[in-house]
Amino acid sequence: MIALDANGADGGPATVAAGARLSGLEVTLFGPASELDGEHVVDAPVKIEGHEEPVRAVRRKPEASIVQAAKAVGEGRADALVSAGSTGPTLAAATVSIKRIVGVHRPALAALIPVPGGPVLLLDAGASVEVRPERLVQFAHMGAAFMESVMGVAQPTVGLLSVGEEPGKGTPEVIEAHAVLSDGPLNFAGNVEGFDLPGAGTRVVVTDGFTGNVALKVMEGSSKTVRGAISEAARSSVVSSLGGLLMRGALGRVRSQFDPERVGGAILVGMRKPVVVAHGSFGPEGIAGALRLARRAVDEDMVGQTATALEAAGALRSAPVGSVEQMTPDSSEAS
Amino acid sequence: MIALDANGADGGPATVAAGARLSGLEVTLFGPASELDGEHVVDAPVKIEGHEEPVRAVRRKPEASIVQAAKAVGEGRADALVSAGSTGPTLAAATVSIKRIVGVHRPALAALIPVPGGPVLLLDAGASVEVRPERLVQFAHMGAAFMESVMGVAQPTVGLLSVGEEPGKGTPEVIEAHAVLSDGPLNFAGNVEGFDLPGAGTRVVVTDGFTGNVALKVMEGSSKTVRGAISEAARSSVVSSLGGLLMRGALGRVRSQFDPERVGGAILVGMRKPVVVAHGSFGPEGIAGALRLARRAVDEDMVGQTATALEAAGALRSAPVGSVEQMTPDSSEAS
Repeated sequence: MIALDANGADGGPATVAAGARLSGLEVTLFGPASELDGEHVVDAPVKIEGHEEPVRAVRRKPEASIVQAAKAVGEGRADALVSAGSTGPTLAAATVSIKRIVGVHRPALAALIPVPGGPVLLLDAGASVEVRPERLVQFAHMGAAFMESVMGVAQPTVGLLSVGEEPGKGTPEVIEAHAVLSDGPLNFAGNVEGFDLPGAGTRVVVTDGFTGNVALKVMEGSSKTVRGAISEAARSSVVSSLGGLLMRGALGRVRSQFDPERVGGAILVGMRKPVVVAHGSFGPEGIAGALRLARRAVDEDMVGQTATALEAAGALRSAPVGSVEQMTPDSSEAS
Repeated sequence: MIALDANGADGGPATVAAGARLSGLEVTLFGPASELDGEHVVDAPVKIEGHEEPVRAVRRKPEASIVQAAKAVGEGRADALVSAGSTGPTLAAATVSIKRIVGVHRPALAALIPVPGGPVLLLDAGASVEVRPERLVQFAHMGAAFMESVMGVAQPTVGLLSVGEEPGKGTPEVIEAHAVLSDGPLNFAGNVEGFDLPGAGTRVVVTDGFTGNVALKVMEGSSKTVRGAISEAARSSVVSSLGGLLMRGALGRVRSQFDPERVGGAILVGMRKPVVVAHGSFGPEGIAGALRLARRAVDEDMVGQTATALEAAGALRSAPVGSVEQMTPDSSEAS
């Protein structure tokens, strides 16, 4: 059973419900019952708005759909959480109810980027903004565990995003993480540069949440701008319009190669249960993809594989036995 | 007179010389006389290779072309420095011979990004990797002064690259810089996100050199990947090949919209003389554009305008009167 927050998608609750039906999976929808049908609906009309500060809103609105859905997962009534669009509240609610794997410094938002030959996993895409070498190292292991267990990529190549390929290039934090990863068990490709992100040569690209968020949005913006310029060019004259018409099928295939709906969105790694964040713009197909991604993460025991990989690499934070992990999300986290 | 380093371009010294001729400007070429012709050539066959650590190489090779060209500018024998491709050695040589404007914390590499409706100026694109709020503030003023004096954009909009539009989003450094810029004299648009970079809605985008370098390369990589996928699609069938043929003119115009050669490269702001870094891949047209950019920066007194703007905004570092500014470039700077 997957808990699905029906609020937050640009298309509204009906779009989310259509995605749930399309997936064919067992799903409980949390949202306004008046706009939803089907057997598994928990009436939760309250939503957290985009302008609200996520951590505060989650505390103040225990009846909000995302808070109730996360609670269902935390209490074992559901196996995974899928949100239809808003990263901030999802992250805050998951932090409160689902919690981190013991020994994980910070969860990371791992975004699947649709590129030809990909997808490429970029993490952290904005769960937190602070940079620490030991977090970058954990992100690398968590990202590789996800690609291996859920996406079926054996020994995925892992790169560290920096300003040059040489090990000495980058911030002091990147340089230190590079040294640790070079001696570790991963298929480590060393530093990679911004050029490499859309190239799919490296399957897991590790960076801090600030740089990752900027890089992801620059990619989306650039790809959209170039495609827009090409569409406009196709309308610029009778001859090129005819050309555009003849190329329509081929250009449609290009569009789908870069379509985020194709890959299922982003997954919050480092939590005790899978948490998937779909893109707000997703239609039913994208929502169904996000649900299937969450289902695969459950079935392949992504969480267990992640914990095992972190432990085997000696990358877990040492904590007193029996201590309860508590986390205060950064108030500055990405929305 | 502009000092032009003829080494470093992918196309070799002859390409650089062709660019100099094309520009119609007074240029002194520093490079191997055997491969260059024309009246203004200083024979300097030694070049700094890409694998050398720039600061060390500049110290060890005083006879290298970039070191001699920078020295000519520093000693007043030339008005500006143009390098045909390698950022690291150019930055190191300029630091030693040309020096910063008094009160400037760090120079910034300001990259002109070719986008429809642009160009957009992104800085710092990789001159240093350390983040400090007071540096971000200086970058904002230096970028605006460049766009106003050299590019003729009156009161350019200035945005701070972050993970969300709200003033509270981002790293502590970004949040602090936001507060300072909000109260300052610039046409400050607040935080902008990665999406906005290719959109040209904000003409000056300010960020630290690590994030800026990654963002610039992600943009270049994405735009190239999308254009490559479209070219491939155009060859995928007889029908789409015909369509591609009919669209060829329009697609060529799209390509030129995103062509870095169109805008002249990147300029190192915060130095006492204009320093322009062309892209290594530039042909003669691009080199000529870089030379014209340097010439405009001299003619419009970009350096004086920058110093005046920084002073008027109270953004200069306070230093003991008569102190000599010395700078040790980060060894981790981008290449």
